[in-house]
Amino acid sequence: MDPAVASTTSVTASDVLAAQARLRKYLDVTPTHYAERFGCWLKLENLQRTGSYKVRGALNALLAARERGDDRYVITASAGNHAQGMAWAAYRLGIPAITVMPKTAPETKVAGVAHWGATVRLHGDTYDEAKAFAAELAAQNGFRLLSAFDDADVIAGQGTVGLEIAAAMDPDVVLVPIGGGGLAAGVALALKSQGVRIVGAQVEGVDAMTRALRGDRSLRDPAATLADGVRVKVPGYLTERVLQDQLDDIVIVREAELRETLVRLALEEHVIAEGAGALALAAGKRVAGKRKCAVVSGGNLDAGVLATLLSEVRPRAPRKPRRRTQERLPVPAAKPNPLPAGLLHVRDAPQPPPPPAAGNIASKALPEALLA
Amino acid sequence: MDPAVASTTSVTASDVLAAQARLRKYLDVTPTHYAERFGCWLKLENLQRTGSYKVRGALNALLAARERGDDRYVITASAGNHAQGMAWAAYRLGIPAITVMPKTAPETKVAGVAHWGATVRLHGDTYDEAKAFAAELAAQNGFRLLSAFDDADVIAGQGTVGLEIAAAMDPDVVLVPIGGGGLAAGVALALKSQGVRIVGAQVEGVDAMTRALRGDRSLRDPAATLADGVRVKVPGYLTERVLQDQLDDIVIVREAELRETLVRLALEEHVIAEGAGALALAAGKRVAGKRKCAVVSGGNLDAGVLATLLSEVRPRAPRKPRRRTQERLPVPAAKPNPLPAGLLHVRDAPQPPPPPAAGNIASKALPEALLA
Repeated sequence: MDPAVASTTSVTASDVLAAQARLRKYLDVTPTHYAERFGCWLKLENLQRTGSYKVRGALNALLAARERGDDRYVITASAGNHAQGMAWAAYRLGIPAITVMPKTAPETKVAGVAHWGATVRLHGDTYDEAKAFAAELAAQNGFRLLSAFDDADVIAGQGTVGLEIAAAMDPDVVLVPIGGGGLAAGVALALKSQGVRIVGAQVEGVDAMTRALRGDRSLRDPAATLADGVRVKVPGYLTERVLQDQLDDIVIVREAELRETLVRLALEEHVIAEGAGALALAAGKRVAGKRKCAVVSGGNLDAGVLATLLSEVRPRAPRKPRRRTQERLPVPAAKPNPLPAGLLHVRDAPQPPPPPAAGNIASKALPEALLA
Repeated sequence: MDPAVASTTSVTASDVLAAQARLRKYLDVTPTHYAERFGCWLKLENLQRTGSYKVRGALNALLAARERGDDRYVITASAGNHAQGMAWAAYRLGIPAITVMPKTAPETKVAGVAHWGATVRLHGDTYDEAKAFAAELAAQNGFRLLSAFDDADVIAGQGTVGLEIAAAMDPDVVLVPIGGGGLAAGVALALKSQGVRIVGAQVEGVDAMTRALRGDRSLRDPAATLADGVRVKVPGYLTERVLQDQLDDIVIVREAELRETLVRLALEEHVIAEGAGALALAAGKRVAGKRKCAVVSGGNLDAGVLATLLSEVRPRAPRKPRRRTQERLPVPAAKPNPLPAGLLHVRDAPQPPPPPAAGNIASKALPEALLA
């Protein structure tokens, strides 16, 4: 979006609510899962149709255009999730969609788009070349060029993620990955008025939005990262304006932290996240909050990449359950069958939590000899 | 359980309801997710505490014992999920638990048990040796020996999976993996009276329950399988009696199908299932039903095993979206900007679904020339 246009374009919480009403009949609410070993809730957009939240913004953009009587073809440039979301949305509504993807796009992502029947045009070697070509086609043919993030309809659609989180678990902090800023802007619009802190996460060296928010719009090639979904060189202008106003903080995550978080998510929580999908959770450990929720934004990860990560990354051992400082309840006076000393090998002494309020028997502890 | 005891032990749907009331304050309802490319719902017990449904039965057994005033120590033999579920339940209630595991148990599973503070005794080289030793300790010390499946409290606890499925998506068929039969028996008790068909899944060569239901109780060493969680030599007697009465069918799955399903679950649905966790879904494609739900029973898979599977197993290409036979709506008479012929490379012609009932614009189709 042109900066001048962005400064006069408006997107508000009511647009997010309108998006929710539009999307309700097409998309199920995705699960919100408490990841016990992380002490953080996860909004599982990897279980969203097409494997990422991007389908929300794409579908909202198509539906909103229909309401406005705008029947132009929609064209979009994307190497990944936005294209797949657009393809699914167009399939679902029975209208055509055109996607320009760089020739270097992974075959699996091209196949994912083609699977839903969208027209795929392979052009150029980079995302920027594909985007320029899409813009050219749009100008020549009167198509609607839909940005993956810098569009009011797209931002409003992504914001429905925030509304679903609030309904599910009443958060005090929500963490979102930031690339172009569409998800962060939408979620902030949805939740800021409810008193929720919104914290963005970016990867070290892939921090164009962080710099833009400080007034630095210089173009730098982003570093190589596992989080290809947020590898954006030119972040949105409309999203920047929303975030300037509404974002509480940004955490910069190191690549190694990202990789470890992705592997821990797989092994401990049995959740497959793509690089960008693990980013918010990776940032979460540096953010205080009693009811934190991190958006797992997508799960479209190449099989080979996941296999390599599982082989190479050895996460540190998980923390032990938090020790409760409460006094032990007295051991029952006469245990019917005291264990012979030394019988059992204790790996880890029990750290019992307080007995439940309604509990009607005393906690028991193993005889002292067993705990030696 | 002794066959004679099993024949006089009762477990009913009301036990499952009682278990649900007990567990409600400790365990969240796990998500039910529609796997679009499989045409099947998934009950995601891989997102359950400790990564499998086993915690339900273990927790119900501890809580039910407390209600009965039975304060014996609980001892269990297990190489995997039952031990972890028991450890978590005991931690949560602040009471001790003792687990006998074979010395050959994977270090990660031993660590998973120790993580929650349970006492771990490593004994013997096989599960059967560990089980015999646990029984010996129980007899010597007056412990309660809790079976992983052949116990009324355990069966009732596992049955709460069925109640949650019914509340979430009103199934006509529910598919469950069968090892000892605890999950299948519980789910059948929960759902059979609601008119739901219950179909079990077993692995070729690991089919002791299938044979038991035909009256063949001969002991055979089960085949090697990825689905270690259902690799049971002696299935339950109480579970057999329930299944004899309530199970509609069993599907035998080949090992190769299981592996492919596990990999497809990871790549297409971003769900990590362990071998037994992918078993019901693998059986699902041979079962008719309009609203099928397969229980993904657990997700505790070794990182190395998953990495190897992802590298070796190449699932067949996903099916294209079902072709709708409905007539195309007419192409709008004059498109403002017809695309030049040959401009776009079509990967896959759109197969538009019927327009939504409330839709207010006509579906559009690309000009014929583009579809060549």
